Amino acid sequence: MRRGCFISVEGIDGSGKSTHIKFIQQLLEASGKTVTVTREPGGTMLGEQIREILLTPRSESISANTELLLIFAARIEHVQKIISPSLAAGKWVLCERFTDASYAYQGGGRGLPLSDISILENWALGCFHPDLTLIFDLPASVGMKRALVRSQQLDRFEQESVDFVDRVRMAYLSLAKNNLKRYCLIDASLSLVEIQQAIQREITPFLEIHLHV
Amino acid sequence: MRRGCFISVEGIDGSGKSTHIKFIQQLLEASGKTVTVTREPGGTMLGEQIREILLTPRSESISANTELLLIFAARIEHVQKIISPSLAAGKWVLCERFTDASYAYQGGGRGLPLSDISILENWALGCFHPDLTLIFDLPASVGMKRALVRSQQLDRFEQESVDFVDRVRMAYLSLAKNNLKRYCLIDASLSLVEIQQAIQREITPFLEIHLHV
Ligand SMILES: Nc1ncnc2c1ncn2[C@@H]1O[C@H](COP(=O)(O)OP(=O)(O)OP(=O)(O)O)[C@@H](O)[C@H]1O
Ligand SMILES: Nc1ncnc2c1ncn2[C@@H]1O[C@H](COP(=O)(O)OP(=O)(O)OP(=O)(O)O)[C@@H](O)[C@H]1O
Ligand SMILES: [Mg+2]
Ligand SMILES: [Mg+2]
Repeated sequence: MRRGCFISVEGIDGSGKSTHIKFIQQLLEASGKTVTVTREPGGTMLGEQIREILLTPRSESISANTELLLIFAARIEHVQKIISPSLAAGKWVLCERFTDASYAYQGGGRGLPLSDISILENWALGCFHPDLTLIFDLPASVGMKRALVRSQQLDRFEQESVDFVDRVRMAYLSLAKNNLKRYCLIDASLSLVEIQQAIQREITPFLEIHLHV
Repeated sequence: MRRGCFISVEGIDGSGKSTHIKFIQQLLEASGKTVTVTREPGGTMLGEQIREILLTPRSESISANTELLLIFAARIEHVQKIISPSLAAGKWVLCERFTDASYAYQGGGRGLPLSDISILENWALGCFHPDLTLIFDLPASVGMKRALVRSQQLDRFEQESVDFVDRVRMAYLSLAKNNLKRYCLIDASLSLVEIQQAIQREITPFLEIHLHV
């Protein structure tokens, strides 16, 4: 049994990850893959408990270091219980947010040194990372407006300033720039149809390379 | 304002930490110190939420790595919000369990390499550690019996086997053996009065050295 491929979907809040992940799933299934769709933080019972802690607005602040440890705690469980077993069983895994989100949010957004994040990444996951990462790029203000329309109540991250979200966006852009191979950047300000065409242009060659999987 | 001293109290479940911490507090207060008494995991709102996750028995397992990240997440908050501010204000801090418990439980008990723990300790806390650590030493079976008598419901750690608790005990003993300076080992199988005398023998010279604090 061949190992499946691991695809992550990234971008600021409201950039269209949840919307487009369904389309990506259809593309993969149309070419015969069995797909596990999941998201971070979350995915396991413990992960959902940690998601609750992280997203619920609170009077007490949480330090960026602490936030990062909680996210990696959920991530280890997610990898061990969901992602790795799926890949080992030959399934493809489609995940909304993964380690890149830590570089973007805790690094870019909160200002933690990227080297601190990479030490922890290595401690927790070794060199386990997605095979392909789609980054939906959108100006901070546009993403925030879209997220606002969608949700009644803003979570702890959605309550951050436009500057915070802009730093997150810039961190994503610099990840994509410094590692062209794994990342592919998609302009999320286009129409849904145009974005679907862009996704198809990225996924089709990837599927061809991994036809055997 | 002189920085206060940080004293941690360690030992297997049921070894008498909570019992003796009150006596230690009295000794410190009798010599004029203002004392903050606290415990791990816990001490902050987030810490108590993590304590709940860690101690509640669950059907799903939690990996040792994940457990360690959660504990350090709570510990960072505890240090930043409670322990460091207290010490900076000249108070003495008396804490039931601290980083040594991670070496004992996740290292000795769960078998994580000690080097993994020390990388994470350094990542999270730099070289912040207690000035004095009292370890209450007791055979595993005796501690388990005492804990059983006290609590109606056993928590996730109290449900572990006697072998697990014995490995925790051995890890504490080896911490004490390899670093005589900071640690002091107290025989917790003695009577309460004998243990109080032993505590007094350790705390009195420590107080004399830190009279100025
Ligand atoms: N290209 C687009 N044009 C217009 N609206 C869009 C576009 N993409 C997504 N939206 C809308 O924006 C909102 C946010 O999209 P979605 O929930 O997919 O974002 P997300 O990246 O998953 O956000 P979050 O990070 O909060 O999960 C939804 O209401 C969605 O319908
Ligand atoms: N020296 C002793 N002789 C007899 N009983 C003792 C002694 N020390 C403690 N006990 C009893 O053992 C029980 C456990 O003690 P205690 O709660 O202080 O332990 P602990 O180390 O704080 O445990 P935990 O790790 O679960 O918090 C209590 O009922 C206490 O009264
Ligand atoms: Mg979404
Ligand atoms: Mg106790």
